[in-house]
Amino acid sequence: MATSAGPPVSVGPLLGPVRSGNAFEETMARMLQLIRLGSIPVGERLPSERELAEQLGVSRSTLRQAIAELQSAGYLEVRRGRYGGTFVRNPEPNPVQEQSREPAPRPDPEDLEDALEFRAVVEIAAAERAAAAELTQRQIHALQETVAQSAEADHYSYRRLDSRLHLLIAEFSGVPSLLRAVADVRTRINDLLDMIPLLQVNLDHSEDQHRVLVSAIIDGDVQRAKEIAAEHIAGTESLLRGFLGEASTEAQKGTKTHQATENREDADAG
Amino acid sequence: MATSAGPPVSVGPLLGPVRSGNAFEETMARMLQLIRLGSIPVGERLPSERELAEQLGVSRSTLRQAIAELQSAGYLEVRRGRYGGTFVRNPEPNPVQEQSREPAPRPDPEDLEDALEFRAVVEIAAAERAAAAELTQRQIHALQETVAQSAEADHYSYRRLDSRLHLLIAEFSGVPSLLRAVADVRTRINDLLDMIPLLQVNLDHSEDQHRVLVSAIIDGDVQRAKEIAAEHIAGTESLLRGFLGEASTEAQKGTKTHQATENREDADAG
Repeated sequence: MATSAGPPVSVGPLLGPVRSGNAFEETMARMLQLIRLGSIPVGERLPSERELAEQLGVSRSTLRQAIAELQSAGYLEVRRGRYGGTFVRNPEPNPVQEQSREPAPRPDPEDLEDALEFRAVVEIAAAERAAAAELTQRQIHALQETVAQSAEADHYSYRRLDSRLHLLIAEFSGVPSLLRAVADVRTRINDLLDMIPLLQVNLDHSEDQHRVLVSAIIDGDVQRAKEIAAEHIAGTESLLRGFLGEASTEAQKGTKTHQATENREDADAG
Repeated sequence: MATSAGPPVSVGPLLGPVRSGNAFEETMARMLQLIRLGSIPVGERLPSERELAEQLGVSRSTLRQAIAELQSAGYLEVRRGRYGGTFVRNPEPNPVQEQSREPAPRPDPEDLEDALEFRAVVEIAAAERAAAAELTQRQIHALQETVAQSAEADHYSYRRLDSRLHLLIAEFSGVPSLLRAVADVRTRINDLLDMIPLLQVNLDHSEDQHRVLVSAIIDGDVQRAKEIAAEHIAGTESLLRGFLGEASTEAQKGTKTHQATENREDADAG
């Protein structure tokens, strides 16, 4: 055939396993993502069952099943009565997880690199676009308040508030696909972050960067927002590579880090 | 509760309808994406049934069902005998589709903007990273050959070869998540492009840009690759907005276009 030639695109990454999840599993996964990324804050009430079922496109009985599971896992609390509803709660740290401080399985170094690189792409773009957008007073308030809360948070609430801040920025970029991509990659990154200790010195540094990032976004300073987002993400990268990445071969590290650095320098200078 | 405050992240874009597709539907969708984006070129043989079923994580009978459907829809050809196998073919343009030249339903302007903005983020990042990577001879050859082929393609093959080139670039970025994101958003954009005429003057211009883009990537010129990718994507954007975007309100257009332009100028200057 005339147009046949050249090696085909490697189909591997495009194929991957088919998602065989049924509506219940998928509903669980989505709800858990919303809660764990703090996009519905602790103490807040979920939208009504009718609304949620509609937005997710699932039956109310499927949703009810998922809520019951999340309730018994400690993520949700159902309160009856006049001021009742389904509320997000901060579950107690899972004692099993806490006890088993035996080294968690080391992530595949290629997965680690993929998550870090993709996160840099989508989160820097989100910060840039949020800074370029005209924010409402309500949006500005939400950013400021989330920064203030995360500065005061204990270690246990920190990750959710941190995620919430970055999701707000992605939402204010005005590009829904960017919000979805940030949420997905952040879930992957959070799973990795859970494998390493939370160091106070890193948290303090991260908080400073959050404040500068939010100011740049509110001031509409696109260039500054881009720079500080890149710096902030690079910090998490070194931390994760330091704790989890030693398994990666030197050769691979060389290329990838070099590449990331070039892009970052470019971002800083750009 | 102490940490409760501030408006929650808008959960709408994160919720969206749950994918209720079963393994068969999902397999069909993935295979169709591989074929329509040209990632397995016309005339090429598919990997063996065993391999494909394994990569997709589905049973061989599910895969066989999907192949039978794609065969009767004209996308695949099963040949028996010694040189047999399942081959990708260029299906005849669907006569029903061709006849019904009544105006296709106009896409939701917000979806159009979302697809265009997200595509700019992931495709520009892919071009930058591909330029920063050290390409093998085989990769360089694949890029050059695909550009040469698309320059000679008839209108009917053009879209696949164009997609194939951009998927190769995304693959050579070395970030699998970026390849998946480019493939997904390109499927959305191609559906939109199918609604508007293919103009020779645009094709010629696009071909010139492809050549410059591929040279920049092969030369490792990150800055040039970024600029030309941004320019190339802006071209498709104006085309699609011109044909499909008039329905969007002026106000919305104002903000979004302004934002996109700022980012683009920034990219050009950066």
